[in-house]
Amino acid sequence: MGLDTDITKIPKHLLSASDPVFEFNKQIIDATHEFCVAYKPNTAFYEALGPSGWETLQKTLDYIPKDCFTIADAKRGDIGNTSSLYARAFFNQMKFDSITVAPYMGEDSVKPFLEFPGKWVILLVHTSNPGSVDFQQLETRDGKYVYEEVIFASQRWATADQMMYVVGATKADKIGTIRALAPDHFFLVPGVGAQGGDLEAVSKAGINSQCGLLVNSSRAIIYASTGEDFADAARKEASKVQIEMTTYLNNFIQ
Amino acid sequence: MGLDTDITKIPKHLLSASDPVFEFNKQIIDATHEFCVAYKPNTAFYEALGPSGWETLQKTLDYIPKDCFTIADAKRGDIGNTSSLYARAFFNQMKFDSITVAPYMGEDSVKPFLEFPGKWVILLVHTSNPGSVDFQQLETRDGKYVYEEVIFASQRWATADQMMYVVGATKADKIGTIRALAPDHFFLVPGVGAQGGDLEAVSKAGINSQCGLLVNSSRAIIYASTGEDFADAARKEASKVQIEMTTYLNNFIQ
Repeated sequence: MGLDTDITKIPKHLLSASDPVFEFNKQIIDATHEFCVAYKPNTAFYEALGPSGWETLQKTLDYIPKDCFTIADAKRGDIGNTSSLYARAFFNQMKFDSITVAPYMGEDSVKPFLEFPGKWVILLVHTSNPGSVDFQQLETRDGKYVYEEVIFASQRWATADQMMYVVGATKADKIGTIRALAPDHFFLVPGVGAQGGDLEAVSKAGINSQCGLLVNSSRAIIYASTGEDFADAARKEASKVQIEMTTYLNNFIQ
Repeated sequence: MGLDTDITKIPKHLLSASDPVFEFNKQIIDATHEFCVAYKPNTAFYEALGPSGWETLQKTLDYIPKDCFTIADAKRGDIGNTSSLYARAFFNQMKFDSITVAPYMGEDSVKPFLEFPGKWVILLVHTSNPGSVDFQQLETRDGKYVYEEVIFASQRWATADQMMYVVGATKADKIGTIRALAPDHFFLVPGVGAQGGDLEAVSKAGINSQCGLLVNSSRAIIYASTGEDFADAARKEASKVQIEMTTYLNNFIQ
């Protein structure tokens, strides 16, 4: 579940709390964690709040039950010594289990994130947004797409036990193509829900023998209601997705 | 000048200050601003300090003289509504003049940063690190490099009055190639100094009729001395680069 909490969109009655975004997240986590394997706060929503936003992010992370996986959706990536700093910030200090990383700067921008035992890199491969056509889908001289080259290269840097791939749900056919190239990797799949991805098509194309999918939904769950019943509404929506996902998992697991 | 201030590398006598990184930055800015057209803090160094690091970054930014341009070296980029949040955080809240943006997610990840009058996007094109060969230098079916496609596409999104390009100094020949493709754009050139870029070669290849270059140096200036004379040493180093740059500017301006 994406904890992309926008202070302008949360129910009005929470605005009197000392930390409205944390109060919202807390109630959402309480209501949904039994249906949820992972929480994914997008750092932009917390950076937009200024320094106190990072405290809100840390409090939120600390509140997530220990049996849930945590993903910093931060899309970082810089030269080696700088990526090391980002890695230390997100893994050692904040204690996230994983972080999303942008591949444009290549091997030495990604590798520092791989030096933390038990932590995961989730590399952007094929994203869910319209702009994914601009560079990710450029065809190279060898007849491959750039996003495929990202898969080939990154498989030389890390195993499927250290790295996952971001593969957007808005193109279910791409998920099948990418599954063929990376049979063992987990995919983080954003774009189900508000962005229009089809969960059944995604599941059919992407599920492998280990499940292999972390399907993210954010706005469709956390803003299921904008009233005082927001947590209950989120619980119902999360439960619905979880039941749907269980069905597909049973149908499509190989 | 890159304000990539690593708390483990600053002079020991500063560690008793209430905010050692800010104290270091303040003295560095005092000592160097007369030689410097822009300051570029890399956000990783501040994120690594936790929430208080963002306060240090804001204090540093507020301390920079108003006649200096400010660059958030943040390398952000996400789906449209999320990039909008990053843009608001860096432009409206923190009040940076510009931000570095990673292009992998394409047009809708970059455009939200262009909606702020008087603010600049500095797009990663060809970076200074070894990993720039991995994807930036992939050749496309049309015989172009991926980094060239980034230039072509981004020139449809913004004018040279809204956008600059990051072009690493470690490959001076690339700067000439890219100058031919983008004659009017300013280039932000990292990699001079600690990373080994040659300022004369960079200047010869990159200077246009408006200068067109923002040449960054960070470690070579801010860590010129690790003793109590660090600010004086930084001043001498900054002055040296400024004099050198003036010579090249006079020699190579077209």
